[in-house]
Amino acid sequence: MQQLNQILENRFINNLTSLLEHSPLQINSTHQSDAEIIRFNGNNDQLINITTDSICEEIKAGLYDDFLAGWMVVSANLSDLAAVGSNPLGILISVIFPENMNYKRIGTLYNGINSACKRHSTYVLGGDINKGDNLIVTGTALGVNNYNKILTRVGCKPGNILYSTGQLGKGNAFALDKLFFRKGAALNYKPVARLKEGKVVSQFATACMDTSDGIFTTLDQLMRLNNIGFEICNNWELLIEKNSREYAQKVGIPLWMLLAGQHGEFELLFTIPEEREKQFINSAIQVGFFPLKLGRVIKTPIINISLYDKMISLDTARIRNLFDNCDGNLEKYFDEMLKIDSELKQN
Amino acid sequence: MQQLNQILENRFINNLTSLLEHSPLQINSTHQSDAEIIRFNGNNDQLINITTDSICEEIKAGLYDDFLAGWMVVSANLSDLAAVGSNPLGILISVIFPENMNYKRIGTLYNGINSACKRHSTYVLGGDINKGDNLIVTGTALGVNNYNKILTRVGCKPGNILYSTGQLGKGNAFALDKLFFRKGAALNYKPVARLKEGKVVSQFATACMDTSDGIFTTLDQLMRLNNIGFEICNNWELLIEKNSREYAQKVGIPLWMLLAGQHGEFELLFTIPEEREKQFINSAIQVGFFPLKLGRVIKTPIINISLYDKMISLDTARIRNLFDNCDGNLEKYFDEMLKIDSELKQN
Repeated sequence: MQQLNQILENRFINNLTSLLEHSPLQINSTHQSDAEIIRFNGNNDQLINITTDSICEEIKAGLYDDFLAGWMVVSANLSDLAAVGSNPLGILISVIFPENMNYKRIGTLYNGINSACKRHSTYVLGGDINKGDNLIVTGTALGVNNYNKILTRVGCKPGNILYSTGQLGKGNAFALDKLFFRKGAALNYKPVARLKEGKVVSQFATACMDTSDGIFTTLDQLMRLNNIGFEICNNWELLIEKNSREYAQKVGIPLWMLLAGQHGEFELLFTIPEEREKQFINSAIQVGFFPLKLGRVIKTPIINISLYDKMISLDTARIRNLFDNCDGNLEKYFDEMLKIDSELKQN
Repeated sequence: MQQLNQILENRFINNLTSLLEHSPLQINSTHQSDAEIIRFNGNNDQLINITTDSICEEIKAGLYDDFLAGWMVVSANLSDLAAVGSNPLGILISVIFPENMNYKRIGTLYNGINSACKRHSTYVLGGDINKGDNLIVTGTALGVNNYNKILTRVGCKPGNILYSTGQLGKGNAFALDKLFFRKGAALNYKPVARLKEGKVVSQFATACMDTSDGIFTTLDQLMRLNNIGFEICNNWELLIEKNSREYAQKVGIPLWMLLAGQHGEFELLFTIPEEREKQFINSAIQVGFFPLKLGRVIKTPIINISLYDKMISLDTARIRNLFDNCDGNLEKYFDEMLKIDSELKQN
């Protein structure tokens, strides 16, 4: 756990889970998978997947409006199901309504929830309502999976090929605009959980994790969990989504920061054994899924990326802990990121 | 739905669910059961049960301290599973931590969660953490059940016998002391979900609902859902838990108010066909469960209770809507309750 505990959030979670006991029915341990994987019947060939995610800080910071809060509580939870290759059965939604939230706003929130459910062909199964100071929306998504296809964050090996289900950077470009530059850029952030893709991935991948907290967070966590490293391909800039790339160039921030921030694009990052790569690609294409190659798994637990015409080993612990170490102050966080950028240029 | 819509909370929930679509996999509709009942496999003889409940207002009002918030998020959710006769697989917990919550307090909260899990022989399967203004704890409990034993709130018939799994009034006595009289009375409120009892009940009952929102709320909701009424037995005062009864007498509030307030004791109320009553009692006693007879189901949708030496038809809609109609003002709510009491005496 020492490796995991270098990250403040991991350490906090480990402190909490050390106070609890692990269920004998649960296949995964803490950190090991995006959704929980539960046995429920000895004779059964199916597993239950379940995951919970609250939308709270994003609303308070002004990152999500009412519609997007509703959309995200569905898609963020379903994305965790996608990362274990699960088939969603539905979602439960608990809402804390502020006193001043009128019916029009409530309608917008529920329009977001309903639109996301329709887009993912799933349903709200139930929920709870309470009054509170701020709007908070908590979702719990439920799914089922085959016992013989357990996909977690753990299992990748040096030589495996690192893929993404789609282009990168949209989450951080959106957050940068919404919280920092406030240009009202039309970045159209409305992520769709990669459920269809997750089912193909689960047939071939050795490990998988969604990018809900951004690319570097995801790679760093996979590195710590598997005691391996990653080498990101030379032309990674080309994998950044077009509008996000143009936005970064317009506001003058380095492209790598779109991978470093902690507001993700909700793609899946996963690793495929080289010998199964061709078969995987064929299966993916058959369902209209075009995986993007990001690099490969290496033996040394470092994250190497080509930047400023050299290969750089990123200090992803520093980058991941930065927001906490800036006490959540966005200006300070952004300044520190720029400081890291100038260090990377000089090195 | 007209009957249900006389209750403000039902109306609000119906407004929300009208914005959503119903899953074809879900057996129950809105309001029809304490936990959701989900088919997940056409060939399977098992059902998934799932329910979510946030502890928010109780913390903010000062009703629950950190330990009790942790305890209640587990037991309240498991109580909903108990009411459908489910076998719990575990619970997910999402916590909103206020910035000023130190590790000692967090430890106390998790001690409450862990103690309740141990008491109910279940486990925390996963969760989420966020920072926010106030402590809010959301649980989602998961269970499984047999397909041929579907127990909901709907199905009771005139002539059925009304039972409770245990003595009444503890929730409201506790709330009265904690929020109103503040005498620090040792009422020892730490409800245990009636899981063992729920399994027996599910073999015999025609309808079941937990008393999480108090006795009158539960009876009123069952009345509206089933278009029947209830006649409560003459000596209902004897069914009020000893400490709660003594407390009410000490602070000088009428005993019926321990059934009217909306902070429940988390017992199960359920209805048994008269012809199966003997067999039910035998099965219950075998597992050390001693059901309390409360009365019977009647044809007319009214709630009759013996009070002040006469039989009174309670205006449970007025009582249920009172807290909302007092805008959550406790003093006003209490005054209005006393006004109802003097009306009942005069009638």
